[in-house]
Amino acid sequence: MNRLDVKPRIRGAVDVLGLLERGRTLSAPVLRKAVERLAAPMDTIAAYHFGWIDAAGNPSDGDGGKALRSALALISAEAAGAPPEAGVTGAVAVELVHNFSLLHDDFMDGDEQRRHRDTVWKVHGPAQAILVGDALLALAGEVLLELGTVDATRATRRLNTATRKLIDGQAQDMSFEQRDRATVAECLEMEGNKTGALLACAISIGAVLGGADDATADALERYGYHLGLAFQAVDDLLGIWGTPEQTGKQAWSDLKQRKKSLPVCAALEAGGPAAERLAALLAADAAYAGAAGGAPDEVFGEAEFALRAALIEEAGGRAWTAAEARRQYDAALAALDEIHLPEEVREQLTALADFVVVRRR
Amino acid sequence: MNRLDVKPRIRGAVDVLGLLERGRTLSAPVLRKAVERLAAPMDTIAAYHFGWIDAAGNPSDGDGGKALRSALALISAEAAGAPPEAGVTGAVAVELVHNFSLLHDDFMDGDEQRRHRDTVWKVHGPAQAILVGDALLALAGEVLLELGTVDATRATRRLNTATRKLIDGQAQDMSFEQRDRATVAECLEMEGNKTGALLACAISIGAVLGGADDATADALERYGYHLGLAFQAVDDLLGIWGTPEQTGKQAWSDLKQRKKSLPVCAALEAGGPAAERLAALLAADAAYAGAAGGAPDEVFGEAEFALRAALIEEAGGRAWTAAEARRQYDAALAALDEIHLPEEVREQLTALADFVVVRRR
Repeated sequence: MNRLDVKPRIRGAVDVLGLLERGRTLSAPVLRKAVERLAAPMDTIAAYHFGWIDAAGNPSDGDGGKALRSALALISAEAAGAPPEAGVTGAVAVELVHNFSLLHDDFMDGDEQRRHRDTVWKVHGPAQAILVGDALLALAGEVLLELGTVDATRATRRLNTATRKLIDGQAQDMSFEQRDRATVAECLEMEGNKTGALLACAISIGAVLGGADDATADALERYGYHLGLAFQAVDDLLGIWGTPEQTGKQAWSDLKQRKKSLPVCAALEAGGPAAERLAALLAADAAYAGAAGGAPDEVFGEAEFALRAALIEEAGGRAWTAAEARRQYDAALAALDEIHLPEEVREQLTALADFVVVRRR
Repeated sequence: MNRLDVKPRIRGAVDVLGLLERGRTLSAPVLRKAVERLAAPMDTIAAYHFGWIDAAGNPSDGDGGKALRSALALISAEAAGAPPEAGVTGAVAVELVHNFSLLHDDFMDGDEQRRHRDTVWKVHGPAQAILVGDALLALAGEVLLELGTVDATRATRRLNTATRKLIDGQAQDMSFEQRDRATVAECLEMEGNKTGALLACAISIGAVLGGADDATADALERYGYHLGLAFQAVDDLLGIWGTPEQTGKQAWSDLKQRKKSLPVCAALEAGGPAAERLAALLAADAAYAGAAGGAPDEVFGEAEFALRAALIEEAGGRAWTAAEARRQYDAALAALDEIHLPEEVREQLTALADFVVVRRR
């Protein structure tokens, strides 16, 4: 990976892995309880998706993801001076929406692996992946409004907005895959919708449930939005140059899907000989894959993807994306300066930003 | 069709088609406005689904459905003594949820025709059908909570519950298709979830938005639930014995999908020679279709379906379902007797029940 040239600002004072662990530990029982409400076989299929059981139905302590959003929602409650527990229902609602989108996107994108395991549509078929995703989305609004407070309604409205942006982002992402190119601005808008909006919701929802005013929630959302874009920039680097061990996905996964991720858009926009050769290849790919009637990963070998990755790097797409991760990281931390926060919370959010941009590689 | 032996109780005093028209007319502009919020190409695809444009993108006054749920939501507001306009946002939210389920179910069920036109997944592909469905579901909660009132939150909670039941019902429906048989009780539970719950929500949501108490809303929900079961019983008859002109679908559509609809379940449960022959055929169908690697409609001819329909009728499944439609119709009207309602509203709801059970054939 490129070095991102970000010095972690918090050194050892904050236990980030402990914060992630707390997010999982406090939200997991409530999440499981919510998922148990689903009619069979959706409850079992959801349990497989979350890594609680394996494909044969046996209990598993499989990788259910980092639950970054849960960790953020609990810190969010503390940002409003409430105990972390005040953010648990918000954490669960956000995780439900996040996992709804994973279930649907994996099918739409044809992704066969997630968290080092076969995706739900591969194991249980597209219909169940769609239906269980639908159920998780519906459940999210249900558990949140069951709190029965005015703040729960405020939180649900923010979650609804984030969910719609998430869906807009997936629509944009898919439409870019059909095109030869997308601009960097289009890509950033798409990623802001697809990743930024729900992280923004995660880091504000606990505060809203804890009684924070809208100005505080909005500033926290800005932190989460930029954190999401930083996260996504790193993810886009991993999507091309990450190993299957790092990503839990196939090698070259973003290139295989013809994703117009940041490194690709930045390379094309940079111009120069490498960018021109890349543009010609991507245009030809589309025609070739269309004529061959298959996705690029079915008609090209590994060397073809390695060539594209090298051209993206030569055109500057890799370096630009690493620099963009840093810019977004800075913007996230700047948003925190706009509001009063308990010092411990500020340190935790800074450490989490460090983790997302610097250590998660 | 069988005669259902229900005498319409209201004769000409209520203009049912006018009520349906009012539902469409008042809700359509708000529905269109909401759908316009979707990012491209979802806005266009949704417009095709609703029949506002054709597949080529030209304006169309295609069949967007009866909008029975919209009509109910406006009457619902009047049931609480509010003007029909007080129910419009509820009508739009319920229509959005209804159409979310149509978009997803058509793909999951492999239905190629809806409202006499190709379904969205056929025209635009599965990914777009899923994504636009997701967007409509998210939009439903969004438009409702934007009202910003305590009653809007109450209405949203009822809509959430109905949505989850709808999804449970689809899960049950799909799981029954994999089985040789389902009991009548299982089928009624499935249909109550899949059809009853959202009609129950439609006829209570306007009242809730108009300030009705929970007891009134609950009684209206019971009316809607039984109306939904009556509606579904008629639909199940049409799904076997209806013509493509009546249904907008292929002939024998429910048999082709191996649906365990009421006539099938009732026939199997009745016993006797016809039921036994039917059971043997359905069990063999599953094995044969499985071995042939296709759905029954790909491996059987029309005569095979005609035979199954005749056996269902001979075993009494058709007559039982017609009688069940009548029982549910009676139960719907009985629910109205539990509460005080403006006399005009009572007459309208009675006329709508007549329409659903008697005239909609």
